[in-house]
Amino acid sequence: MGEVKVFRAWRSPFSWRVELALKIKGVDYEIVDEDLSNKSDQLIKYNPVHKKVPVLVHDGKPVVESLVILEYIDEVWTENSLLPSDPFDRAQARFWANFIDNKLFPLARKAIIGRGEDGEKAEEEFKEALKVFEKEIVGKELFNGSKIGYLEIVGLLVCYWIPILQEAVGKQVLTRDTFPGIYAWGDQLLAHSFLKENLPNWVDYLASYKARFAPSSS
Amino acid sequence: MGEVKVFRAWRSPFSWRVELALKIKGVDYEIVDEDLSNKSDQLIKYNPVHKKVPVLVHDGKPVVESLVILEYIDEVWTENSLLPSDPFDRAQARFWANFIDNKLFPLARKAIIGRGEDGEKAEEEFKEALKVFEKEIVGKELFNGSKIGYLEIVGLLVCYWIPILQEAVGKQVLTRDTFPGIYAWGDQLLAHSFLKENLPNWVDYLASYKARFAPSSS
Repeated sequence: MGEVKVFRAWRSPFSWRVELALKIKGVDYEIVDEDLSNKSDQLIKYNPVHKKVPVLVHDGKPVVESLVILEYIDEVWTENSLLPSDPFDRAQARFWANFIDNKLFPLARKAIIGRGEDGEKAEEEFKEALKVFEKEIVGKELFNGSKIGYLEIVGLLVCYWIPILQEAVGKQVLTRDTFPGIYAWGDQLLAHSFLKENLPNWVDYLASYKARFAPSSS
Repeated sequence: MGEVKVFRAWRSPFSWRVELALKIKGVDYEIVDEDLSNKSDQLIKYNPVHKKVPVLVHDGKPVVESLVILEYIDEVWTENSLLPSDPFDRAQARFWANFIDNKLFPLARKAIIGRGEDGEKAEEEFKEALKVFEKEIVGKELFNGSKIGYLEIVGLLVCYWIPILQEAVGKQVLTRDTFPGIYAWGDQLLAHSFLKENLPNWVDYLASYKARFAPSSS
């Protein structure tokens, strides 16, 4: 099926998505690690518009944006489907993936890293968005943590990346007490041996985020 | 194939997308016009997360977000494909549709409607984004205006809606002089009889935007 390369940054949760999907499909790939403070000419050539990781290069052709890459992977390597087969379920999965990326992710960053009035406003909005997420989709048949597909790969941002960012920064918004449904779903999802083996190690990953985001003591 | 309803607002370019796609597929549908200043209980029931049009209701089940709806329509009614068949071309189409919706659209609004320093900053960013769009995709084989599919339906935002907003507000940023490639593509696309028959009439549409956005003389 041609040569597959993944331009990634180890810390980028969007990069994991591509690697997890390729592993589910059993596709061999070469990793190209990017230094985001000094991006390679190749990365800029392959993603001239956003100049971001991840980029999947398949047979010399670049595909960019993690959600677009997941769809591409699912269409090219059709075994072990990532998206559900029913069109309505597929639409639901795409809708909630967009919600995670375009709503929860930017609000999480602002709420956890942000300071002052903007940070407080973002914290309220983030909690509201988490409530919607917990109420409308988490634990439902389509997204109950029992299997790993497209929406679960995207949802790892919520149950793995956000808790790490919170711990690194020292600010907890999404907690077990306030969002028990999200944690119950996340616990079940993260118990899969596939994820235990293939997600970045929690301790190392947290250390890298602490190095970047922990409040300075100086 | 079951009953199809489209909850729309006549002025919403995102609503047209759904109607154009259904017309390309030859699907009969019922229109439910929403008053966006007084949204119906049904709309809120069907789209509790964003409470926005368009919503496609098929056999009683709601699908929301125009790009998600286009994918749904293409999967349920498979004749007259909207997306290209090749996975790489499909990925390109999805990438540029996201670019139009998440980059060009918000910048266009800010640049054309915005005032003061924010408006000026948005104008520069909007021009940069238009340059990227014109250079990287407009006129290329995948997007040359010769046929009407997913990316063309989305791209009408650029060649039809933006010029109308500009004329209503009285501020021109995307012009024939500065972006001849975009206009050449748009002219070819808008010459299709299908679009002449099915897009909102320019004069009425402009009048509705003028009523909303024209600078007040009082």
